[in-house]
Amino acid sequence: MTDVSDARPWCAVDLAPGRARAWLLRGGAVSARATLTPPPEVPDRQHADALIKRLGTPADGAPAVICGLSGPPAPVAVPVKPGQIQPQRQAGTNAHALPGLRQNSPPALMQGDEVRIAGFLALNPGWDGVICLSGPLTHWAQVSAEEVVSFQSFLTGVAADALAVTPVLHARLTGTEWDDDAFADALDTAMSRPERLASGLAEIRAMATLEGLPGSEARARLHGLLIGAELAAARPYWLGQQVALIAPDDTANRYAAALVRQGVPVARTDEERMTLAGFTAARRRIAAG
Amino acid sequence: MTDVSDARPWCAVDLAPGRARAWLLRGGAVSARATLTPPPEVPDRQHADALIKRLGTPADGAPAVICGLSGPPAPVAVPVKPGQIQPQRQAGTNAHALPGLRQNSPPALMQGDEVRIAGFLALNPGWDGVICLSGPLTHWAQVSAEEVVSFQSFLTGVAADALAVTPVLHARLTGTEWDDDAFADALDTAMSRPERLASGLAEIRAMATLEGLPGSEARARLHGLLIGAELAAARPYWLGQQVALIAPDDTANRYAAALVRQGVPVARTDEERMTLAGFTAARRRIAAG
Repeated sequence: MTDVSDARPWCAVDLAPGRARAWLLRGGAVSARATLTPPPEVPDRQHADALIKRLGTPADGAPAVICGLSGPPAPVAVPVKPGQIQPQRQAGTNAHALPGLRQNSPPALMQGDEVRIAGFLALNPGWDGVICLSGPLTHWAQVSAEEVVSFQSFLTGVAADALAVTPVLHARLTGTEWDDDAFADALDTAMSRPERLASGLAEIRAMATLEGLPGSEARARLHGLLIGAELAAARPYWLGQQVALIAPDDTANRYAAALVRQGVPVARTDEERMTLAGFTAARRRIAAG
Repeated sequence: MTDVSDARPWCAVDLAPGRARAWLLRGGAVSARATLTPPPEVPDRQHADALIKRLGTPADGAPAVICGLSGPPAPVAVPVKPGQIQPQRQAGTNAHALPGLRQNSPPALMQGDEVRIAGFLALNPGWDGVICLSGPLTHWAQVSAEEVVSFQSFLTGVAADALAVTPVLHARLTGTEWDDDAFADALDTAMSRPERLASGLAEIRAMATLEGLPGSEARARLHGLLIGAELAAARPYWLGQQVALIAPDDTANRYAAALVRQGVPVARTDEERMTLAGFTAARRRIAAG
């Protein structure tokens, strides 16, 4: 196997939903970062090229590994070992794309988070349990013997962000503070009566207008209701399981608090480190291939 | 009582959530309509004045009745007879504002739809049952002896609109067609397992990408999931009840289909007619007051 830590600079490009970011890597260290704002709806090769250029690298000048592309390569069906999926060369370029994961029943699609699973498993060989990957979508992935056996997806983060900017809620979510008790209360409500999600949202608006509910509490209630409804549905994925959490800090804090409240032991991880470990493992497979 | 059908022109201004529209009325007929796009987040007197000007009337030139204002007058607690709530004169103007309805437990707030309830009851004296008012928010109001006894609110329309424009769903909701079977299927899913709302949304995305789910089906599934989860929570409001539906046509079609599927007899109404009947009844109370 080629030791890529001594190889020439290369680019890692993450186009997972809600993410559009890239790293220039050199000798195992990050020497530049770039992002596109807002992230594209349907990420394609042009977005990858734009990110690579922002790293200060001509699009064809450094080898690149890309995840989260829509279109080819086609997603790979589970069960599958993410650490063995071979990146595919993009015709006429110096870039390789990682396929996502698919599940036929119930229908599920992962486009990008599979690189973080591969990174986690590269750093934690032999780990069995459930990996919760959260961002705009949340994926709960059952992992056994380095293999993703099944996964279920939720649009929780997308819904929270979309609701937070609606005219009827936006003016109520003032400030940036967070109310732990309000989060726990809303979480418990939605876990025991998940069908009350939309009425719970209307209650936030009513309490804000009638009782001067602070923004910190309104925001915590919004996320508590959405994560509570998700946990009620994802119960088979966390009940009695070992759970590892891969998510940006804010999101990870909420999921960790929610899971710890259910008595679930949660292993926190560094999301960027998992991502780069996954890309590095893929780069090694390309070099070895 | 003064017969307002012979009175001078007056304005009706509806600032309920997601609505910002006004009518110039003369002898019981509409002689002009105006709207503000987009509707304001926190509707105040300035928005009412802007609408009145668009009707071709100077803001102080014609008497106006306004519903849906945030701030004073304070909402009136239920139980209450909407047909007896007195509009309050806005200091230094020729305008009167109708207070909304509030409920303390569970917390609920209606700002504007109370005028449609009053209109429905003015046209259907003695009617008892449940009125479902749907728009950005849905209110289910239990009515007995002309009184709103209790109500429950849902942010279903807000959530549907917000989700439809998110990057992960937007590109999947192509076209304007509608798939009745997909709506019924998603409705049944969410009514029996309402906690699966967020995973059902993720499945729409997965099916669109993996199986080429048509936009007509994706859109119908989105609304089916959201309305199904709402019906699961609002069951005490519709089960075994006589339900009258007051909503814009598209929304009314969806709710009527969903309720008829549960075996509930639904009385459809003309939403603008209910609104104007409510304003006209309020105008009569002002003239009589």
